[in-house]
Amino acid sequence: MIDDLDKQILTALQQNARRSYADLAKQFRVSPATVHVRVEKMRQQGVITGTVATLDSRKLGYDVTCFIGIILKSAGDYPATLARLEQLPEVLEAYYTTGQYSIFVKIMVRSIDELQQLLISKIQAIDAIQSTETLISLQQPIQRQITP
Amino acid sequence: MIDDLDKQILTALQQNARRSYADLAKQFRVSPATVHVRVEKMRQQGVITGTVATLDSRKLGYDVTCFIGIILKSAGDYPATLARLEQLPEVLEAYYTTGQYSIFVKIMVRSIDELQQLLISKIQAIDAIQSTETLISLQQPIQRQITP
Amino acid sequence: MIDDLDKQILTALQQNARRSYADLAKQFRVSPATVHVRVEKMRQQGVITGTVATLDSRKLGYDVTCFIGIILKSAGDYPATLARLEQLPEVLEAYYTTGQYSIFVKIMVRSIDELQQLLISKIQAIDAIQSTETLISLQQPIQRQITP
Amino acid sequence: MIDDLDKQILTALQQNARRSYADLAKQFRVSPATVHVRVEKMRQQGVITGTVATLDSRKLGYDVTCFIGIILKSAGDYPATLARLEQLPEVLEAYYTTGQYSIFVKIMVRSIDELQQLLISKIQAIDAIQSTETLISLQQPIQRQITP
Amino acid sequence: MIDDLDKQILTALQQNARRSYADLAKQFRVSPATVHVRVEKMRQQGVITGTVATLDSRKLGYDVTCFIGIILKSAGDYPATLARLEQLPEVLEAYYTTGQYSIFVKIMVRSIDELQQLLISKIQAIDAIQSTETLISLQQPIQRQITP
Amino acid sequence: MIDDLDKQILTALQQNARRSYADLAKQFRVSPATVHVRVEKMRQQGVITGTVATLDSRKLGYDVTCFIGIILKSAGDYPATLARLEQLPEVLEAYYTTGQYSIFVKIMVRSIDELQQLLISKIQAIDAIQSTETLISLQQPIQRQITP
Amino acid sequence: MIDDLDKQILTALQQNARRSYADLAKQFRVSPATVHVRVEKMRQQGVITGTVATLDSRKLGYDVTCFIGIILKSAGDYPATLARLEQLPEVLEAYYTTGQYSIFVKIMVRSIDELQQLLISKIQAIDAIQSTETLISLQQPIQRQITP
Amino acid sequence: MIDDLDKQILTALQQNARRSYADLAKQFRVSPATVHVRVEKMRQQGVITGTVATLDSRKLGYDVTCFIGIILKSAGDYPATLARLEQLPEVLEAYYTTGQYSIFVKIMVRSIDELQQLLISKIQAIDAIQSTETLISLQQPIQRQITP
Repeated sequence: MIDDLDKQILTALQQNARRSYADLAKQFRVSPATVHVRVEKMRQQGVITGTVATLDSRKLGYDVTCFIGIILKSAGDYPATLARLEQLPEVLEAYYTTGQYSIFVKIMVRSIDELQQLLISKIQAIDAIQSTETLISLQQPIQRQITP
Repeated sequence: MIDDLDKQILTALQQNARRSYADLAKQFRVSPATVHVRVEKMRQQGVITGTVATLDSRKLGYDVTCFIGIILKSAGDYPATLARLEQLPEVLEAYYTTGQYSIFVKIMVRSIDELQQLLISKIQAIDAIQSTETLISLQQPIQRQITP
Repeated sequence: MIDDLDKQILTALQQNARRSYADLAKQFRVSPATVHVRVEKMRQQGVITGTVATLDSRKLGYDVTCFIGIILKSAGDYPATLARLEQLPEVLEAYYTTGQYSIFVKIMVRSIDELQQLLISKIQAIDAIQSTETLISLQQPIQRQITP
Repeated sequence: MIDDLDKQILTALQQNARRSYADLAKQFRVSPATVHVRVEKMRQQGVITGTVATLDSRKLGYDVTCFIGIILKSAGDYPATLARLEQLPEVLEAYYTTGQYSIFVKIMVRSIDELQQLLISKIQAIDAIQSTETLISLQQPIQRQITP
Repeated sequence: MIDDLDKQILTALQQNARRSYADLAKQFRVSPATVHVRVEKMRQQGVITGTVATLDSRKLGYDVTCFIGIILKSAGDYPATLARLEQLPEVLEAYYTTGQYSIFVKIMVRSIDELQQLLISKIQAIDAIQSTETLISLQQPIQRQITP
Repeated sequence: MIDDLDKQILTALQQNARRSYADLAKQFRVSPATVHVRVEKMRQQGVITGTVATLDSRKLGYDVTCFIGIILKSAGDYPATLARLEQLPEVLEAYYTTGQYSIFVKIMVRSIDELQQLLISKIQAIDAIQSTETLISLQQPIQRQITP
Repeated sequence: MIDDLDKQILTALQQNARRSYADLAKQFRVSPATVHVRVEKMRQQGVITGTVATLDSRKLGYDVTCFIGIILKSAGDYPATLARLEQLPEVLEAYYTTGQYSIFVKIMVRSIDELQQLLISKIQAIDAIQSTETLISLQQPIQRQITP
Repeated sequence: MIDDLDKQILTALQQNARRSYADLAKQFRVSPATVHVRVEKMRQQGVITGTVATLDSRKLGYDVTCFIGIILKSAGDYPATLARLEQLPEVLEAYYTTGQYSIFVKIMVRSIDELQQLLISKIQAIDAIQSTETLISLQQPIQRQITP
């Protein structure tokens, strides 16, 4: 579906989404029009879904990253619980996975105290939840994107 | 450290990193120069670390997302094992967490067959690894960024 | 109950259920009538229960094989839950085992997406189920029958 | 790849692999030549891999069915251990799965005593094995084949 | 409370409860009256609680020994559940232990089939039980009594 | 193999191994010679293996009863480890079981301090042992013998 | 906030809370008034919260120290359950932790029998508790205070 | 060993170790000499082991309290590992417990970052440690002393 030039363009845009077509064209020895056509094609195919500014979560005060495995009282409560979690902005990712957890979420909070409040006052206040198991990330040595 | 206008600008750039300063200025009823100053300040402070094009992993053929809990033979083998994992492009994120795993990684591969090859031929070939436990994500209903 | 000739015939039929009695008779240096008598005797004793064509599940599009450990809210819900699982053609085998699971099943589905639908919409919709734990088979290097 | 008639023929052969083409032709209101062509095509495509006589394991004296989760000392010992398990005829199926086990096998033995001997003298004598966990099947209420 | 002669007498009676006082007296070089006094004293103190004929459980057809860890829906259901277990003669020992089980029992049954019936029809029919985990004993290499 | 009279005699002897044949004969309305013949037959068949005086372990100072699950470094170390455990008189019973433990033992010691010494200085000093998990019995509400 | 002299004073008072200011002044070669000022400042800041006599729990008859992991039926029952535990003087510490337990407590009781009574009659009588897991401390080789 | 007056004095000193004998005497309506005699007796018996100033760990910057379950490669490495842990001032308590951990410790550190360094550079650098499991305390609602 996508060829080597497409992949090179994607890799470049994964590193810097604001590079100009002219700049990319020069790097890959093609015309700017070619880059433009390729980028547009990949946008329309839905391969490129957008561009985001990446922020340093530590600089924004988010000192604590956790994975929380949620065990429900009843497997059938999954959709309703998900809707409740959706309303908590601290829940950045949620997964339905094989394994022992009913729902597996990734959250970011500013401090251990904020984690305590999130867990006791918000997450565990959801009646369908039987218990939670929290893995606190102490270090995240690898963070990168998929190879196009 | 950052005020409400900063936060509004960050939120806008999280949704679209290519928006022009003029456009942002209009939306927040300030001058383009103000937006420019703010963005530059946040870049220099390291709050904004860059911009990335976001890609649809499914469209690129990555059908399988997993979390793998790695248990080492010896806790002291952590740094060396991390260096080996770093060389595998399928390993997108790695965490050092509280809980039972020595290392917790997130990977993306194209198929169940590719997962098998990654696990048997690459990850489990690392001598320091005693065992691995794989959670395959069947659905990821929430994916979003931190609130600035 | 069964002698060596019986065992040889069974082993041969495990490999190819359509072999003729004449062919088997020749291989084992007995008369075709003898083979016929033996096969009929084992059919009547219930040792031979039938013949099945074996199909390549991958070729039929079944790419995902899983074992699912099901934990019930109440141990007494076992018979009713089994009746519900019986109605799902994806459930190929079900076991009542020692160990932590209330029911242990083997399923085959066409894809990770189909697995997700089976789990969320069909299996976890059974009210008696508290939780499920899924082991996805990445490779099945041994598959054979019992030695008669 | 396969149409409805193919599927009907496969389902019939899953129930009785020795049915004649004439008999199948009559049931599905097509000519015997058509059945012949379809079966041959599916054999050549590898959809049909053979025919097996099914035996009643209880009648053959196999009273104990188990699943054994094997945990290795080192994840890298997987291929060598598999080769050793291959030599044990009691090991009917072996799987490489996600989850906590290095290898997951299904075995059938004649008695609890034979299980003890298999585990202590044969399986646990394999040096690469750290430990095993055995689930004994007390009942197998569902046993059927995939829907073509 | 008890001296060396007492201990010697106890050890002898642990091996054979029917030995005569005369015989024990001869072995320990004391008078039969002394043995009589000692045995009577220990009976009255409750040190000796009785004598039992020991039976070979295998010879009586009890081929399967298990430990079953029982997990209750509610910790408070312990006394009522115990009363129900008391009525099952297959339950030979019951313990309230530290660790993950609400009740830990030892049972003996004649066969795997009888175990299945006991578990499904009798133990899991107790409404207060959430789940059970069964360890089947494959071998019992040590069986002896406390040293007096 | 054994009839109802045999079972009645066994049950009586399980409660009191020193009862005279005359006494048993009177209870079951048979001649003392009949009781004698039956008991002798069951001794020779190995159904009755002996008689033991039962002692009150608490009165002898044994305040702590535990089950210890032993996990070995290597499954193959089972026979050697068993020989070492055999030498510890506190180990009253040892089992080879399905489930997560390599060896499962029952011990009795006089106090928590003695348990600590047994575990640290004797059991964990066995080099083949990777770890142990101890369940302390806080109460043993059921203790009885098999029904003949 | 606190300097080296403060830290030295704190360390001295952690070892003996009744030492006089004169004595401390002599040791740290400052005036007693300085010590007085520093101690008062740290009291007002809340760094020093009080003084306690330390007692030997064994001498007071507390022979058994345990950690108990409590699992609730519903995560939302945490505040009410805590209030109930507060009323039990044997519960010396209670923690809300990451990991599998809803509440994690440290208790001290006089004997195994008292532990049994506490668990069965008091803790497990709290209706919100699904189950408990008890770790008995057999030895506590390290017990000390934080470094100021 | 100790009477009601002793207990009252102990309870008072647990709350404030610096109270004068005169003050205690007045409260309990005895002479100061009596209080003196009692306190001295309990010191000599070892019931009172000292006095400590209690400090507010949060005010001293210790924001993170954890329990760490340590699993050793070999149970026999317990004494040597303990000696290594003794050298780490962050390890405030260490327990040898029943259950799955070889050693169970309580630690206090200033931040998540300091916890990471302690775990990776100090605790997991101890070669005898196979793995660690960390429970971070998010809240400690109960903290009190034993009832004399």
